[in-house]
Amino acid sequence: MKIGVDIMGGDYAPESIVLGALDARKELSPDQTIVLIGDKDQAQQIIQKTGENPDGFEFVHTTEAIRMSEHPTKAITQKPNSSISLGFQMLKEGALDSFASAGNTGAMLVGSMFSVKNIEGVSRPAIATNIPKEKSGYGILLDVGANADCKAETLLQFAILGSLFIEHIYQVKNPKVGLLNLGEEEEKGNNLTHAAFPLLKEKKSINFIGNIEGRDLFNDRADVMVCDGFVGNIVLKLAESFHALVEKRNFKDEFFDRFNYEQYGGSPILGVNAPVIIGHGISTPLAIKNMILLSRLMIESNITDKIRSAFN
Amino acid sequence: MKIGVDIMGGDYAPESIVLGALDARKELSPDQTIVLIGDKDQAQQIIQKTGENPDGFEFVHTTEAIRMSEHPTKAITQKPNSSISLGFQMLKEGALDSFASAGNTGAMLVGSMFSVKNIEGVSRPAIATNIPKEKSGYGILLDVGANADCKAETLLQFAILGSLFIEHIYQVKNPKVGLLNLGEEEEKGNNLTHAAFPLLKEKKSINFIGNIEGRDLFNDRADVMVCDGFVGNIVLKLAESFHALVEKRNFKDEFFDRFNYEQYGGSPILGVNAPVIIGHGISTPLAIKNMILLSRLMIESNITDKIRSAFN
Repeated sequence: MKIGVDIMGGDYAPESIVLGALDARKELSPDQTIVLIGDKDQAQQIIQKTGENPDGFEFVHTTEAIRMSEHPTKAITQKPNSSISLGFQMLKEGALDSFASAGNTGAMLVGSMFSVKNIEGVSRPAIATNIPKEKSGYGILLDVGANADCKAETLLQFAILGSLFIEHIYQVKNPKVGLLNLGEEEEKGNNLTHAAFPLLKEKKSINFIGNIEGRDLFNDRADVMVCDGFVGNIVLKLAESFHALVEKRNFKDEFFDRFNYEQYGGSPILGVNAPVIIGHGISTPLAIKNMILLSRLMIESNITDKIRSAFN
Repeated sequence: MKIGVDIMGGDYAPESIVLGALDARKELSPDQTIVLIGDKDQAQQIIQKTGENPDGFEFVHTTEAIRMSEHPTKAITQKPNSSISLGFQMLKEGALDSFASAGNTGAMLVGSMFSVKNIEGVSRPAIATNIPKEKSGYGILLDVGANADCKAETLLQFAILGSLFIEHIYQVKNPKVGLLNLGEEEEKGNNLTHAAFPLLKEKKSINFIGNIEGRDLFNDRADVMVCDGFVGNIVLKLAESFHALVEKRNFKDEFFDRFNYEQYGGSPILGVNAPVIIGHGISTPLAIKNMILLSRLMIESNITDKIRSAFN
């Protein structure tokens, strides 16, 4: 198993990425290899400083990186030697089993669609994010930004993608799907949710429980929370800011701790032909470690095959 | 000045409403009268129990009420003697200067549009809600549920309505308007925000500062935060649920206290021909007191005339 990691992406790259990879390596078995893509010299210096051995990693050297501010499509096409471009090339060729980066989100999305491409039948891949549930564990919210405007059929696909993720990654049987809406009643909503509701209701392969509201995000009503990427992105950033406000005040609590993105490592892109994970720009070594462990879990669970079967 | 209050609406009506009115009365001057609309006998019993005098109030007696679960348009047309219907009738006739209720939100919206009607030039009235700012004070978010699907021109109108409210009610000069979006850059967004951005940018009478993100809700980037009612409703309920989670854990703090809807009393409907306020369903006496004081402020500030001038 080859787990690809971009060491040039993220606000604290490459140090934070390399340190996180060192921590992750301790939990991997000998046949699970982390492939570090980026400036090899810098990476080796960071590793040597810790007194650890760089031998356990594979390196793919490049000094070119896509910056956070760059236009995704332009950057992917004009920088074929950037760490993100190289990662996707290797993923496409089968030289990697997964690819993860805390760098430019748009470039990760475009890169995955250009290289490994959408799974047949999936019209729009989605970025899914973990949402801590008050009682325990996580649900997922999707899409959180890949698709600002969605069709009803796309929301149905998100529901299927999210259900498979929750079922095979979090081992939740028959996960509950909720449509994020402005009221609980079936007749409530905007044009999009009005059109999506019957599609979700009719779909036998998912466990649709109906509309959920903004206040249901953290309770147990739904494991898979579906919305367009515009709404999802606003909800995600609002939730993050709330966590930051609580943390700033040193309010400590098991639930609020689980808000911390470091605990789950990153947001998978669901619906493409390989496990791809986007880490948070401010990823710490702990976040990177968990991003790598989530990569492994996505490979081991064969989530990509499971999604392919569901759409064929 | 006649401040109309529905005593039949809200989860703790009529007791909570009447007790709140008693508290508010202490802060009103002799020419400012609260008109209690609903079951007069019950109201007088509640007042007598406190040892206070019912003489300071005016009463409009009815035992009919619109329940929370009723269909707004049906209820308004089929229950002309309900407290909400009577309130709007009096408002239309000039027997009241404002009307407020913690009852059925939809009925309040429909009632205001049927009775006092939209201000000429305002295509869709909006429900505005207070959002506590971390440093101090409040901003407002609109729309939070009156209009699930919006046109770009409607968002521009919300920006104007919200700016006038913040300027004349909160005395903030040249309030900053932000368009709630999934990214800061002008090119980010969905079809709606792409269309709305240039309209907001070109409008001379508002101080448009550009896109804001979900994480900007509680900071000082914008005083007036504009979005469609679908997004606003989800954001509002999510924010309320955060507050509930913090409160449940007894995390106390001046900022989180300001989250409490009781502090600002209710959400105004902006864009109709009279001050109308919707209180929270779970309104306590403190919330009702503040709902009444906000009613007074909206009357005294001539906010309705200010809006009329801006749209003519």
